[in-house]
Amino acid sequence: MTLTHPLPRNEDGIAAALGILKQRYGDRLQTGTDIRAQHAHTTTWIPNQPADGVMFAASTDEVADVVRICADHHVPIIPFGTGTSLEGHVNAPAGGISLDLGQMNNVVAVHPQDLDCRVQPGVTRKQLNTHLRDQGLFFPIDPGADASLGGMAATRASGTNAVRYGTMRDNVIALEVVLADGRVVRTARRARKTSAGYDLTRLLIGSEGTLGIITELTLRLHGLPEAMASARCSFPTVEAACNAVILTIQMGLPVARIELLDGLQVKACNAYSRLSLPEGPLLLLEFHGSDASVAEQARSFGDIADETGGFDFAWSGRAEERTALWQARHDAYWAALALKPGCKALSTDVCVPISHLASCVTATQSKLADLGITAPIVGHAGDGNFHCLLLMDPDDTAEHARAKGFVEWLADLAHAHDGTCTGEHGIGQGKVPFLEAELGSATSVMRAIKAAMDPDNILNPGKIVA
Amino acid sequence: MTLTHPLPRNEDGIAAALGILKQRYGDRLQTGTDIRAQHAHTTTWIPNQPADGVMFAASTDEVADVVRICADHHVPIIPFGTGTSLEGHVNAPAGGISLDLGQMNNVVAVHPQDLDCRVQPGVTRKQLNTHLRDQGLFFPIDPGADASLGGMAATRASGTNAVRYGTMRDNVIALEVVLADGRVVRTARRARKTSAGYDLTRLLIGSEGTLGIITELTLRLHGLPEAMASARCSFPTVEAACNAVILTIQMGLPVARIELLDGLQVKACNAYSRLSLPEGPLLLLEFHGSDASVAEQARSFGDIADETGGFDFAWSGRAEERTALWQARHDAYWAALALKPGCKALSTDVCVPISHLASCVTATQSKLADLGITAPIVGHAGDGNFHCLLLMDPDDTAEHARAKGFVEWLADLAHAHDGTCTGEHGIGQGKVPFLEAELGSATSVMRAIKAAMDPDNILNPGKIVA
Repeated sequence: MTLTHPLPRNEDGIAAALGILKQRYGDRLQTGTDIRAQHAHTTTWIPNQPADGVMFAASTDEVADVVRICADHHVPIIPFGTGTSLEGHVNAPAGGISLDLGQMNNVVAVHPQDLDCRVQPGVTRKQLNTHLRDQGLFFPIDPGADASLGGMAATRASGTNAVRYGTMRDNVIALEVVLADGRVVRTARRARKTSAGYDLTRLLIGSEGTLGIITELTLRLHGLPEAMASARCSFPTVEAACNAVILTIQMGLPVARIELLDGLQVKACNAYSRLSLPEGPLLLLEFHGSDASVAEQARSFGDIADETGGFDFAWSGRAEERTALWQARHDAYWAALALKPGCKALSTDVCVPISHLASCVTATQSKLADLGITAPIVGHAGDGNFHCLLLMDPDDTAEHARAKGFVEWLADLAHAHDGTCTGEHGIGQGKVPFLEAELGSATSVMRAIKAAMDPDNILNPGKIVA
Repeated sequence: MTLTHPLPRNEDGIAAALGILKQRYGDRLQTGTDIRAQHAHTTTWIPNQPADGVMFAASTDEVADVVRICADHHVPIIPFGTGTSLEGHVNAPAGGISLDLGQMNNVVAVHPQDLDCRVQPGVTRKQLNTHLRDQGLFFPIDPGADASLGGMAATRASGTNAVRYGTMRDNVIALEVVLADGRVVRTARRARKTSAGYDLTRLLIGSEGTLGIITELTLRLHGLPEAMASARCSFPTVEAACNAVILTIQMGLPVARIELLDGLQVKACNAYSRLSLPEGPLLLLEFHGSDASVAEQARSFGDIADETGGFDFAWSGRAEERTALWQARHDAYWAALALKPGCKALSTDVCVPISHLASCVTATQSKLADLGITAPIVGHAGDGNFHCLLLMDPDDTAEHARAKGFVEWLADLAHAHDGTCTGEHGIGQGKVPFLEAELGSATSVMRAIKAAMDPDNILNPGKIVA
């Protein structure tokens, strides 16, 4: 993978900052090789670039203190949640301090009447949902991994149910953030909407730790639906499946999830989970609402499937059957890896207008076949976002080169269809070369904002605006 | 109303820019007194501060050209849509050029499969919805006035159906913007979601013309609901009505609108529209969905109303009856004005967490009574946003002073309940003093961004970050 130009290391500053942090925080600063490697990029074959030390912060005040120390010595700070990001966000290309926020994991307050809560950044989405369950509430964003909510905000994460509930962009009311000079600011009050000045909340969401370090989030919650139902339906072609998706969205059917699996992914799931699904394009759906409305939604989607050539349509509102219907999706990642034992995976993340989804997926399948790359495809079809999971032999450099070429080809394909190179994973290091191609001189505005908010480039340098 | 400190006028630059624009654009630059006054603030008793000339732009290239001319001569540019904003946004406190975008009113493209469209900034929301109707689509944001979509984006407008469809923040996919140096940038591609770098789209939405001039919008559309139903229900107290709202939101009932009118507003509507509604707190609702689902929603709300002490509940899915049920809301503004013939109105705009809505509305009613100010209240109750329409004698300076005190008191009340001084009208000139109270040092981040993107402060100076 091409990384950006190497960033210079400030050896003296790093040594000074490490010394102060060690003296002030003792064992909460760790400098062992293993722990530093674990806090750098581990999830794809972007190279691991460890920080010089890992600091475990316990409070906003401590984060501010660490930032001030690093600011005084011009030392990079790389915020770390659970390390499940996919584009090298937690790498330290110029060294510095990895700031682990995992110990800041308290649910500070829940306001059931307002459907919101305040959490520290290290709270994971599963932890929050466990905390909320008794109150009949949930936080809907589900990127797959049990990521930290701070990290999810930082990468503007979304996942399977964005089609109904939106992304992190839509479900954060306010942030508390430590700026590059150590000041602590709140971006908004707790009202559900506001027109009070620039939307700093949205500016910080998706800024990948380059503009500020998120130390608290006020999140929007939703009432647990009274009823849920799941459905699956096979289609003769990707195009037929995408037509069903388009009709579903057009008629305003409030599907909670509508996921596409391509034939190769279904085949992988059949093998891995002992299923016998037709090995062609498959849609998996989830409906939320009252008993009556989920049944109505399922029937309406059944009608759409009929119109668009769907077959083997099945739905159920019963918990066990629901799980069985969604088994293929739950197992998709592990099933894909099992296609090629010993492989490492790289997930692409383009997102296009849904009218172009079918043609883009089909072109992608052809290209992968031409290149001899094994890569099942899953898509958040309602959003036009699809992932190819490239299964790579870690030692096969020729395959890596082909994969690199494919990733570039795919970004170009998305751009040619007015789409984006990243629907939900972010730019990080891995996609820096594509951002300018996608947004042209708008990237200079991003650089101007970065320079205004972090003039010494100490906050997660080498990401987004590198 | 307290305005910010007077801004210095750059007389030489203004004269030079007017000369160049006149030569280049002829009659599309207007300098008459009336037209300049009409292009400055006219909607409340914030003083009218006209620009030195009004330029009618016909294209993005022309906007860029005008901005370059003004940039060369350090002359303010004040973007103008329909002039329906409420906080002095279109005033020219340092003179300069009012840039009227009303002639840029083409719907550029509609993509029904993707549920999006591209429009020029002068297209109004009603014009767009007329254009879309045949295709079974609509754009939901309804701030009351038939505002331009560029202006609605610039002020982060919302209105009666934000509770279901969100605000302008949620319904803009991408913007084309002319920056302070005349460069034209696009903030995003057309995909429904993206994690590609800083969210410049959201940064521009609500920036009130101070960071860039919106020259095209890519908007998210929605399918026209198959069925609609309306309902109304009276309540013994504001608190009972708000409890009904809270339960409605908590159970996830997807109401399209849920509006609160206080007793005085209902009384005004009875008089104005010859209705005989109980003259106490009233909720008006709208439901969108299938025939079955709107009926289910109406019945569910009826149950909630029963639980919370509601009475005179009525609902209907028939168009004429729907209109009749909502008559009070449609006429609310004119009915309020008729309470005090010859008055001028000033609308407040606080927004609080909905658990605090009842206590804030009740405290507000008491305060208004203490001050002897006539001000009916309407609220977008599902969002916690309510407006007092202060009916002022234009010649009564003592009343103005009391009103000014009330507006400050109300902002303090909202802040004390973790709310905002503006849910949807924006900061403009009128609320500049409250922004720092609301967000503290976050306003310094706003100023840093403003300085980075508009170093000479030529884009709508004196607004938000004045």
